[in-house]
Amino acid sequence: MAATITAFEHSPDRGQGLARDMRVRWAFEEVGQPYEVRLVSFTALKEPAHRAVNPFGQIPTFEEDGLHLFESGSIVLHLGERYPGLLPPDADARARAITWMFAAVNTIEPPILELQNAVLLEAKEAWTAQRLPAVKDRIRKRLDELSAYLGSADWLDGAFSAADLMMVTVLRRLGPSGLLDEYPGIAAYIARGEARPAYQRAFAAQLAVFEQGSGG
Amino acid sequence: MAATITAFEHSPDRGQGLARDMRVRWAFEEVGQPYEVRLVSFTALKEPAHRAVNPFGQIPTFEEDGLHLFESGSIVLHLGERYPGLLPPDADARARAITWMFAAVNTIEPPILELQNAVLLEAKEAWTAQRLPAVKDRIRKRLDELSAYLGSADWLDGAFSAADLMMVTVLRRLGPSGLLDEYPGIAAYIARGEARPAYQRAFAAQLAVFEQGSGG
Repeated sequence: MAATITAFEHSPDRGQGLARDMRVRWAFEEVGQPYEVRLVSFTALKEPAHRAVNPFGQIPTFEEDGLHLFESGSIVLHLGERYPGLLPPDADARARAITWMFAAVNTIEPPILELQNAVLLEAKEAWTAQRLPAVKDRIRKRLDELSAYLGSADWLDGAFSAADLMMVTVLRRLGPSGLLDEYPGIAAYIARGEARPAYQRAFAAQLAVFEQGSGG
Repeated sequence: MAATITAFEHSPDRGQGLARDMRVRWAFEEVGQPYEVRLVSFTALKEPAHRAVNPFGQIPTFEEDGLHLFESGSIVLHLGERYPGLLPPDADARARAITWMFAAVNTIEPPILELQNAVLLEAKEAWTAQRLPAVKDRIRKRLDELSAYLGSADWLDGAFSAADLMMVTVLRRLGPSGLLDEYPGIAAYIARGEARPAYQRAFAAQLAVFEQGSGG
């Protein structure tokens, strides 16, 4: 039986592929493995049945042969370890790819999440307009560094890997902010990720869920 | 030759073991492997020589036999894969431990970093006092969930693993906030981590750097 992942029944990103199931869908497509999707409502996310799989009430989760995982980074890494296509065969290159997976979620994503909180959760607060420049500057610092590192390279470390999958999906969350307009090199890097056939199949699959849900 | 890691020459935590080299030091002690430490000044962190190893100008980094890694989570995972003592031998238990490592850095740590930014970077801003309750509530949400999951268990998933090492070190960053006083179960979990002999050796080693630096 194919592995089963969970995704939002009604994704707040309206099919833009910003929800974290996109990372896992893309990983399945890169390794060419089938997967089933179980859609979860916002209410069900917070109920005991889902919390038994993910104590934090989030998507995505992963289930296969009695193994339950959560955290998109961990699921992508699990797939990369089981199937060729996401992690380099060379041990050192593989370790470096994992370093970049952690950099995506622990160095690049936190300031992006802070901006998201400011825009979504603190939108109506008096201070938000004044705070935003400094919040954005914290992201710019990381984008400056990432940009300098990438230079004219296509991918983070040699061939495309799970590192790029994680980094591209983290960076895509900046889409609504306009910040990527300031970084044409990073925008081109994201576009290279989005151009991969595996990405496109994953994007189409999550968009179909949104379109079916909104049309029903 | 032993592996070499980097740490702050003058740690801003003044020897409290909150800097991220503590995670890597603790991991080395759990697996019983020697390591060398190269201390880096704040100026040197941002210079090309260090950025060649970590493009984001952070500590810790890891170097062994020509392999360079950064990101504490990735280095701890690398050690866990190479030596027994940090990851369970059973494949499913190992995958779950890695899930919890990612949960520590990508679900628990981001709201803690947001609080740290508010307290350190935005301390003098007029809005900070008004913002802090909501910022702390975002952390409480995660601590409530973690607390409910942990229940009366000693560790996150069976025996102590790299998952607990990462989670305990992430949670310790809350020390100055006073939030842990509200969560005696989590405080006890952290104390169990701190009681491990490997933790204590690592803590003493990083404290010695601070004491030598401040006494010199």
